[in-house]
Amino acid sequence: MGKLVIVGTMAFDAIETPFGKTDKILGGAATYIGLSASHFNIDSAAVSVVGGDFPQAYLDFLKNNNIDVSGVEIIKDGKTFFWSGKYHNDMNTRDTLATELNTLADFNPVVPENYRDADIVMLGNLHPIVQSSVLNQMTKKPKLVVLDTMNFWMDSALDDLHNVIKNVDVITINDEEARQLTGEYSLVVAARKIHTMGPKYVIIKKGEHGALLFHNENVFFAPALPLEEVFDPTGAGDTFAGGFVGYLAKTEDTSFENMKNAVIYGSTLASFCVEKFGTERMQNLSNHEVHKRLEQFKKLTQYNIKLT
Amino acid sequence: MGKLVIVGTMAFDAIETPFGKTDKILGGAATYIGLSASHFNIDSAAVSVVGGDFPQAYLDFLKNNNIDVSGVEIIKDGKTFFWSGKYHNDMNTRDTLATELNTLADFNPVVPENYRDADIVMLGNLHPIVQSSVLNQMTKKPKLVVLDTMNFWMDSALDDLHNVIKNVDVITINDEEARQLTGEYSLVVAARKIHTMGPKYVIIKKGEHGALLFHNENVFFAPALPLEEVFDPTGAGDTFAGGFVGYLAKTEDTSFENMKNAVIYGSTLASFCVEKFGTERMQNLSNHEVHKRLEQFKKLTQYNIKLT
Repeated sequence: MGKLVIVGTMAFDAIETPFGKTDKILGGAATYIGLSASHFNIDSAAVSVVGGDFPQAYLDFLKNNNIDVSGVEIIKDGKTFFWSGKYHNDMNTRDTLATELNTLADFNPVVPENYRDADIVMLGNLHPIVQSSVLNQMTKKPKLVVLDTMNFWMDSALDDLHNVIKNVDVITINDEEARQLTGEYSLVVAARKIHTMGPKYVIIKKGEHGALLFHNENVFFAPALPLEEVFDPTGAGDTFAGGFVGYLAKTEDTSFENMKNAVIYGSTLASFCVEKFGTERMQNLSNHEVHKRLEQFKKLTQYNIKLT
Repeated sequence: MGKLVIVGTMAFDAIETPFGKTDKILGGAATYIGLSASHFNIDSAAVSVVGGDFPQAYLDFLKNNNIDVSGVEIIKDGKTFFWSGKYHNDMNTRDTLATELNTLADFNPVVPENYRDADIVMLGNLHPIVQSSVLNQMTKKPKLVVLDTMNFWMDSALDDLHNVIKNVDVITINDEEARQLTGEYSLVVAARKIHTMGPKYVIIKKGEHGALLFHNENVFFAPALPLEEVFDPTGAGDTFAGGFVGYLAKTEDTSFENMKNAVIYGSTLASFCVEKFGTERMQNLSNHEVHKRLEQFKKLTQYNIKLT
């Protein structure tokens, strides 16, 4: 079984959707990625930073989910990163109401010694210089480096972003961001351009419309499970990424064929995440529930055609 | 092999896309449905109306594609239905520049005697009263009635629409129309409501985002093939429907499992349609090309997961 290191934010989120609103709850990319990957019972560590206001109970909760948190720096007199957002009725668009970087502003990630030889590195959405610094700490070339990013860094740190992108194997990015990064409307053409920037594998996330995995001229598509209602989309992309890397770490097979399965697992886990606020649904998710939903995915997507 | 009757428009289309524009070319729902279904070498007839300006060459072309056109009424001193539209840069939205109903305004479809016992009836997008009148002419209850419609009839003839919908087995409708018809945002909930209106099968078309097939609590999803460029989306929905009914007529199996295959065939044929203007790409489409693309669909969607 492979070893996984995850770098990303840990945060307080305050979320408003048409179904209700929350006070400050546990959030952050590393949290969602870690919880999702922990489903695979792998050896994983989260690298992050929080303030003295971050409850020990949250860290204990992550630890109880088999996530090593020794790489989570606690800045006693600092405050934890805070994000607040409000989703529109269609759940596909949202307004950011507040972003308080706090301790995240000076985040200087330190990968624990015993994870510097990890097989898989998952670089959650952060400043590309921070992402690069994690890669520089690895004592052994990882089998797979996966990077998530967003349009904010394309606007504010494009050169740094290109510098880290050229060193990763897989990039996950949403459709609009893929278009922004490449100047191409067609996602097929955009993925091809991103290949030339470094990543051999490109995952384009389309939210409720699923995700595409590109590898040169090969492409695979995983739909999102059609749900009666999406309660809160927060963390769905990170949960998807966590399922993807978790499955690859578990199976130790980074072939394109196995990445198809990893994408299906990612989509499956994300389908739970959106059913409740924040991490709530991911907290008590059983293997049995996941397997049942994988069966639903199979029925949703698999067919046996007779050529005419 | 089943017998298929198709009712729908035959038209002149003038199309403008970011890639260019056409003069009046062959268009119309019955044309696209017929050409797509003809790929299956089935016994099919088109029921439509055109004016004296409709070239005999077009009718010959359809006949040469194995489509019985004896049910296409020619009104010598009338003009053929004309539609003109301009697509925006994203290809997902368009402006209608002109709609001249002409002979379509008084369309009184007559199903040829030898098709009144057809196994499958495909009701292309038309006034719901016209669609009903076709059903009333059938001397034998068809195995399957498939109906396509659009928001225009929901706005202008909702009662008539409900009257015909309750007599069909399958409805094809796009996502926004499904929401309008039911007042539900969730497509899962919308499909469930449409079931109660009559159709046991509901196909919700999402354009470049694929199509969903619902049957009670069962759901199947077929993506659209990711293409380098969509040249002209005109007729894609009708081509999809034509592939769907053509495959079902060919295989004579209207089970949900076989409908999955029919949806994949529909999506496959539609992926060709959008590659050129109007019907151009569908005119010289070989079986070999279709089979190759079905292989692409398989690679795009099929996986073999190991449960962890």
